[in-house]
Amino acid sequence: MSPDFNIDEDLALANRLADAAWSAIRPHFRALSSVENKAGAGQSYDPVTEADRAAEKAMRDIILRERPQHGITGEEFGDSPSSSGWRWVLDPVDGTRAFVAGLPVWTTLIALVDPLGFPVLGVIDQPVLGERYIGWPGGAALQTPGGRSPLKVADVPSLSDAVISTTDPFILTDPELDVWTELRGATRLARYGLDAYAYARLAGGTVHLVAESGLQSWDVAALIPVVTGAGGHATDWTGAPASLGGQILCTASDAVMDQALALLEPAAL
Amino acid sequence: MSPDFNIDEDLALANRLADAAWSAIRPHFRALSSVENKAGAGQSYDPVTEADRAAEKAMRDIILRERPQHGITGEEFGDSPSSSGWRWVLDPVDGTRAFVAGLPVWTTLIALVDPLGFPVLGVIDQPVLGERYIGWPGGAALQTPGGRSPLKVADVPSLSDAVISTTDPFILTDPELDVWTELRGATRLARYGLDAYAYARLAGGTVHLVAESGLQSWDVAALIPVVTGAGGHATDWTGAPASLGGQILCTASDAVMDQALALLEPAAL
Repeated sequence: MSPDFNIDEDLALANRLADAAWSAIRPHFRALSSVENKAGAGQSYDPVTEADRAAEKAMRDIILRERPQHGITGEEFGDSPSSSGWRWVLDPVDGTRAFVAGLPVWTTLIALVDPLGFPVLGVIDQPVLGERYIGWPGGAALQTPGGRSPLKVADVPSLSDAVISTTDPFILTDPELDVWTELRGATRLARYGLDAYAYARLAGGTVHLVAESGLQSWDVAALIPVVTGAGGHATDWTGAPASLGGQILCTASDAVMDQALALLEPAAL
Repeated sequence: MSPDFNIDEDLALANRLADAAWSAIRPHFRALSSVENKAGAGQSYDPVTEADRAAEKAMRDIILRERPQHGITGEEFGDSPSSSGWRWVLDPVDGTRAFVAGLPVWTTLIALVDPLGFPVLGVIDQPVLGERYIGWPGGAALQTPGGRSPLKVADVPSLSDAVISTTDPFILTDPELDVWTELRGATRLARYGLDAYAYARLAGGTVHLVAESGLQSWDVAALIPVVTGAGGHATDWTGAPASLGGQILCTASDAVMDQALALLEPAAL
């Protein structure tokens, strides 16, 4: 393993980043929006944009100080160069619509990606709930104020038993929506609007398939170590290992993966 | 006010009912389901059914002991008679699909309904989050482990600024779906799958309209005091005061209510 990567130290850093993000986000969650704030001297206040920018800045400051050799890719402020090939990939508020609606299913996403583009550490943090889902090579855990417990996907025997999720079926392309509708009909029940929290619950055993498309690197990088560390599969819709964007399929068991890939195949890119 | 109703004592009782429900539900939330449990000597274990029945039984036992003159209507065990005309209306787990998926947006609903069928107290409890939304004649509050704060709907100036929600557009009738789709297009954003938690967040100011149909008394009774106590409107789709079932429309402001009723009118029953 590269001297640029020390799992214990980098996990500790990832935890500090998540803490700093929540400190920056907290004043803006369920805060009065610009909708009601128009009288305020023409100033527009958009809580989720403020939260996003403040949290990414807080995390960038820490990384620049503690890992100056690592690059940074963030949803809000773009790319900073890496002298080592290693890179932190940050999405301070994933699930902005849930955030706007005051729902506790948005998350902060933090990943460390190696020089080959493979995410080796991932954090999905939901601080209102006090749930932090962490993945690394070979393991995953849920940290709460009450302690830390291993994460393990459910051994679901068939697609017909599976709880499935996608963030918004209306952002799928027509061929994608067709296969999603078929998939939905073959499963136990479907949930929407969860963004990265769906992958966290896949690692936690209560969701068994998540399929999405059109994703960016910061949407995906943190999810892969959490899902695979908990024993799940992360692929694209052709069954190849997931890359940092595009179509992604995460599944809890071989059976669910195989049955889902057969249904998704006509829309796989 | 009837001697059968004492707001402080009945609110205290409602709090004890919610505590008892969570104690009964807790062992079953995110527990291993029958899907993975099939080897277990042919016994089927359905966590949400177990949670529902255990919690309703726990609440019924307390009411029978402390308010023998009050009736009970519950989703799981039906009606018990009332000698006073007063009645507790209980839904131990509202949002069973969220519960199955391990999502913290199911709720326990508790209402006290007067002899004329008007709900005077309502509790929407989300114990994983530690959020208990309480409404009574003239007020509403959010209780958390950190304290109690007043609930107030947002003064949203127009439907185009509103965050709206319905549990599942696919359970609406065709005329209802048509008007919902038009409504969705006229608003800021829509969220799904929230069941009663959407009404809680309406009272909390981050959701501004919830429209649903086909509801039962135990789905509705607890919501009305919370929404109206926080300053919101609870009507049916014609604009008449909400009754304990059928089509319901809850809105945060006069402007949102008026604009929504105009759009919903073609499907109002």
